[in-house]
Amino acid sequence: MKICVVGLGLIGGSIAKECRTREHYLYGVDANPIHQEKAIDFGLVDEIVDIDSALKNADVFVVAIPVDAVEDMCQLLLDRIGWHQTVFDVGSTKKDICMAIADHPKRSRFIASHPLAGTEFSGPGAAILDLFIGKKNIICEEHKSDEDALEKVLTIFNELGMQSLFMDADAHDKHMAYVSHLSHVSAFTLSLTVLDIEQDQKQIFNLASTGFESTVRLAKSNPDTWSSIFDKNANHLSDALGQYINHLQHFKSVIDSGDKMASKELIEKANEIKRVLNGLKLNVVKLS
Amino acid sequence: MKICVVGLGLIGGSIAKECRTREHYLYGVDANPIHQEKAIDFGLVDEIVDIDSALKNADVFVVAIPVDAVEDMCQLLLDRIGWHQTVFDVGSTKKDICMAIADHPKRSRFIASHPLAGTEFSGPGAAILDLFIGKKNIICEEHKSDEDALEKVLTIFNELGMQSLFMDADAHDKHMAYVSHLSHVSAFTLSLTVLDIEQDQKQIFNLASTGFESTVRLAKSNPDTWSSIFDKNANHLSDALGQYINHLQHFKSVIDSGDKMASKELIEKANEIKRVLNGLKLNVVKLS
Repeated sequence: MKICVVGLGLIGGSIAKECRTREHYLYGVDANPIHQEKAIDFGLVDEIVDIDSALKNADVFVVAIPVDAVEDMCQLLLDRIGWHQTVFDVGSTKKDICMAIADHPKRSRFIASHPLAGTEFSGPGAAILDLFIGKKNIICEEHKSDEDALEKVLTIFNELGMQSLFMDADAHDKHMAYVSHLSHVSAFTLSLTVLDIEQDQKQIFNLASTGFESTVRLAKSNPDTWSSIFDKNANHLSDALGQYINHLQHFKSVIDSGDKMASKELIEKANEIKRVLNGLKLNVVKLS
Repeated sequence: MKICVVGLGLIGGSIAKECRTREHYLYGVDANPIHQEKAIDFGLVDEIVDIDSALKNADVFVVAIPVDAVEDMCQLLLDRIGWHQTVFDVGSTKKDICMAIADHPKRSRFIASHPLAGTEFSGPGAAILDLFIGKKNIICEEHKSDEDALEKVLTIFNELGMQSLFMDADAHDKHMAYVSHLSHVSAFTLSLTVLDIEQDQKQIFNLASTGFESTVRLAKSNPDTWSSIFDKNANHLSDALGQYINHLQHFKSVIDSGDKMASKELIEKANEIKRVLNGLKLNVVKLS
């Protein structure tokens, strides 16, 4: 296939890099000249082109830009593609994009998807092979997409090593608020709390161990990417944050009361996440 | 040296395992017969003994049991050791143990320490080599310890690959509340929040990505160990939790207000933790 990746950051760049190891030709589109240059230097794409040129040649368009820009870009592409071409996005929120293009005449040439993979790094230099292997990809409103378009996109995700699942767009956004977006806010605020109290950063440096490092890892994540995601998923995320704050207030009151048995019981209950995480690991091993 | 490790879990077991690779003889003491058996099977110690026998033979005692039991055990050992013997603990809180033995006639044979290392696993099976390499060890009230005793303990920590720093006991507990204990409560409550909302654990399994996994990793930690630590450091931890909740409430209000620029600014500020974490990594590489 001739694949055009719009947005050559961590996700777009990694998709391009992986696709280039197969029988595909990769066009890259990026508004940032530095990204364009790096994408060529790092061998992510065969060619940097503009949208006009891509529209003449590409079979499939991958939209991998911050979620606040996804809607306009997808609309623009759908306005101009032919019926033989396909567009899919890889944004972390799905309800708004699905609503924005719901009545577009070429809606059926679009597939709303979200590959659940990433790292805390960003830009073309963060693009890596094997980022997606053994991970899940979510596709929303698949019944609104043409069969041949869906098939092309599923082929690409299969080649990335991903298993695709189908889900309602609003349900997707709600679940992601809990299992992804909340983790990020939790890490960002943990970082803010520690930086705030430990004005002398040397003490954090001296005292932080690997536990702190893994919990706060996501606090390194890209501000543009994540402020856009939080904005797009504000309602669900606000609910999730409210629940999280309630749990924290309860935990604090247990600690304040000196009831060690109650705090032990909370920890035992929290330990149940082990089963889920062990299942995740097994699954990655099985699929990779 | 003849070293007796009291408590053959993750930390005690790993110290024993590492020391056994040197010219030391390792005695193991553990109340749990299963731990005793495993410690021998896994080669953590040369011999399982009781306290009486250890008191006759060992030069140095390492107390590596939950912090709520550390005080009694250290008192008991100090009551019975000779002036040629040394006791040190490796507990995660330092103020209470320092206060408990402050007036003990053999106070000078004790060193209060806290090696900043660990994993989310526990028990003798979790003991690993190289756990401590390149990490920091904190020693409190070193001026109250005899020079020869301090030297023996520093030798052991050096052999573990650790750099020892000296710090006031209460300052230690306060800093640890922020850079360690808070991370744990944050992970435990994140787990509780997600388990609570995602009654159908299959969805967490399907949707959780590596970001969630790393943020929630510490939620697998041992309930006895951590309920004791939280109890011992209740005041500082409660302050830290209060600050964390304030930051979360502020973040939530920013998201609720739809002010994307403000949330971007918060994320940019949180990103500053990068510098600290990168410093940490460089240091580990340099020392190991």
